[in-house]
Amino acid sequence: MSDFRQQALDYHQYPTPGKISVELTKPANSSKDLALAYSPGVAEPVREIADDPDNAYKYTAKGNLVAVISNGTAILGLGNLGPLASKPVMEGKALLFKRFAGLDAIDIEVTHRTTQDFINTVANIADSFGGINLEDIKAPECFEIEQALIEKCSVPIFHDDQHGTAIVTAAGMLNALEIQGKKLRSARIVCMGAGAAAIACMELLIKCGAQREHIYMLDSKGVIHTRRDDLNEYKMLFANNTDKRSLEEVIEGADLFLGVSGPDLLSPETLKLMAEKPVVFACSNPDPEIKPELAKQARNDVIIGTGRSDYPNQVNNVLCFPFMFRGALDVRATAITDEMKVAAVEAIRQLAKEEVPDSVLEASGESSLTFGSDYIIPKPMDPRLCHRVARAVAEAAVKSGAAKIDMPKNYMLDQD
Amino acid sequence: MSDFRQQALDYHQYPTPGKISVELTKPANSSKDLALAYSPGVAEPVREIADDPDNAYKYTAKGNLVAVISNGTAILGLGNLGPLASKPVMEGKALLFKRFAGLDAIDIEVTHRTTQDFINTVANIADSFGGINLEDIKAPECFEIEQALIEKCSVPIFHDDQHGTAIVTAAGMLNALEIQGKKLRSARIVCMGAGAAAIACMELLIKCGAQREHIYMLDSKGVIHTRRDDLNEYKMLFANNTDKRSLEEVIEGADLFLGVSGPDLLSPETLKLMAEKPVVFACSNPDPEIKPELAKQARNDVIIGTGRSDYPNQVNNVLCFPFMFRGALDVRATAITDEMKVAAVEAIRQLAKEEVPDSVLEASGESSLTFGSDYIIPKPMDPRLCHRVARAVAEAAVKSGAAKIDMPKNYMLDQD
Repeated sequence: MSDFRQQALDYHQYPTPGKISVELTKPANSSKDLALAYSPGVAEPVREIADDPDNAYKYTAKGNLVAVISNGTAILGLGNLGPLASKPVMEGKALLFKRFAGLDAIDIEVTHRTTQDFINTVANIADSFGGINLEDIKAPECFEIEQALIEKCSVPIFHDDQHGTAIVTAAGMLNALEIQGKKLRSARIVCMGAGAAAIACMELLIKCGAQREHIYMLDSKGVIHTRRDDLNEYKMLFANNTDKRSLEEVIEGADLFLGVSGPDLLSPETLKLMAEKPVVFACSNPDPEIKPELAKQARNDVIIGTGRSDYPNQVNNVLCFPFMFRGALDVRATAITDEMKVAAVEAIRQLAKEEVPDSVLEASGESSLTFGSDYIIPKPMDPRLCHRVARAVAEAAVKSGAAKIDMPKNYMLDQD
Repeated sequence: MSDFRQQALDYHQYPTPGKISVELTKPANSSKDLALAYSPGVAEPVREIADDPDNAYKYTAKGNLVAVISNGTAILGLGNLGPLASKPVMEGKALLFKRFAGLDAIDIEVTHRTTQDFINTVANIADSFGGINLEDIKAPECFEIEQALIEKCSVPIFHDDQHGTAIVTAAGMLNALEIQGKKLRSARIVCMGAGAAAIACMELLIKCGAQREHIYMLDSKGVIHTRRDDLNEYKMLFANNTDKRSLEEVIEGADLFLGVSGPDLLSPETLKLMAEKPVVFACSNPDPEIKPELAKQARNDVIIGTGRSDYPNQVNNVLCFPFMFRGALDVRATAITDEMKVAAVEAIRQLAKEEVPDSVLEASGESSLTFGSDYIIPKPMDPRLCHRVARAVAEAAVKSGAAKIDMPKNYMLDQD
């Protein structure tokens, strides 16, 4: 067994199984404490909440609590291994919520027969939480599930594999295009992969200014075009009215490549067909569509991002999801609006352009980080992310009418 | 606003809303930590669990995790106030699980249309947890719900309002009868109230030796007898073939009275009708069926228990449920069997007969506690409860075939 494999198993097993626990935030030592925490004292907050449901945010943990929910149908790159096998990932996500944004998060793995059964189950428990992070649910069911839950629930619903990925990708791409001297509006885009992340990335790029007709999306059968009759409704939105049928044809002259497909699917020769100063995000994990060293070898005018932490420009959802929920919950947003997503993109982009404090360099194991082709996205260990992104999200929630309360006074400002 | 009411609200609101949080049990500081906790390291435990579901107990928090689940249809004595209003109670229960048995517990409040909808929802999420504590669900739906979940789920299901109450009540009653020199087998019993707790208490007393035909149960319409045509299937089991129609008639010569009904429903005059040396458990909360001082005034040969902490002999579920789950989870019981319930009764009974350490006296605010008419049930603050009850439950689970693993070596023995 490899060293790393054993270390990962040991980390999960010892000294206690798993990665999270539930702890008390109030004293529970004396009989008096318990009389306040439980019977008879607990009747008081019960009555207050029965009178006004918003009092749940005043007297319970709801307002800081996120449920991380999966059915295990698309676990990381491992596929459909079922709900229980997804538990370590969901606990891991809960760990990240706490570590990066101070949010309490609990994982729930759902066994179900139909998609509707999953939707009902989550909708029925949703009000227990301040927000719901959907995770590792396969496409195309994830689209229907998210849409139905947004309609049914009064708390924010966020499918991180779609939107977290899209937000960080868009932030990195916009910065890369800026460095290359290009505009998203006129960029020709190739998206290799047509799953949940691919579709969400392209939809968000369009919201940021990309033109739908400039996008060529490919699935396992090749280019998605208007004359195919095997497309689901989600892919259909990206059916391009084109005669091009191969990656080589569509990538010729393209400015932007997003890979969310599989290892080594972009050859150096194909990369050479792209326009001058291209941007390539090869996000297949752990093995990217093209290795950064190969890409740079093929052409040195490329800016490349991946999903890996051992290369520059890592697209890592943790730059977004903890703070998306932090901001949303802090103004009691009832949904995650497009405005909030775009605000997160801008906040992440902006941070990469700022000077990096020594403490962040040290935590990230870097000697220097300066905005440029090898630093277009902030590092996960940058503590400024929390207040920048959460504040931007909260402001956008208030402005877009999604927030039930105003921005707290000086929200996150004192932490800069 | 009363002092206590304000204190209870303040306790729940400050410094942070609610009573519980989710915390990390593993380091999450460095990039290396995160690589183990999440991608790519987390793939290792995922694969192990996909290979063998039991590995979830090895690599995730499941084995120490209890869900406290309610629909808010019977909140404490407050009635049906809906799922969200029950949240402070469920968080309070989670607090008690942690405080008394070190179990991680998270509350889930379920909104639903039909009983079947509730059952499906809980069954669909059950595998996320090591066990499920159902709470504050009204009768008679609670019976159907518990039965269906026991059949559908592979983790232990326990409706505490029924069985926790029944176990502590039975322990106290058996001790009281012993002190009075009576046997449960020959005891004539009156049960005032016919809800979930009443029915569970009577069923458990029968398992402990009581005779069903010696039981007279009363609901709001009076004595439950075989000629009534308005009984649900659960009350029907206690329909007595009798001509007696009033409390006064059935209580005459009775040895044991259990009240789970309402305040002041047992008058001193009626109490005088009971047999010599009677046992009265007046558990209506906060106001008992008869106040202990009134009962003692009426006859000094009575042993009386209540649900209140300010009188002797408090029937308090916290003596049971944390340790029931502690024992069940520690041997991975797949259900809570009758054997486990009876073992808990015996362990609780036995502890009341032992000498009480000074530390327990101090924590309980008592100067002395000696087995007798004013001390038939252990005090909640007695730390010996955890290992005594959990060990008894675990042993019974193993013996009754409900356990998936053997008793851990020296289980809880070193803590005596």
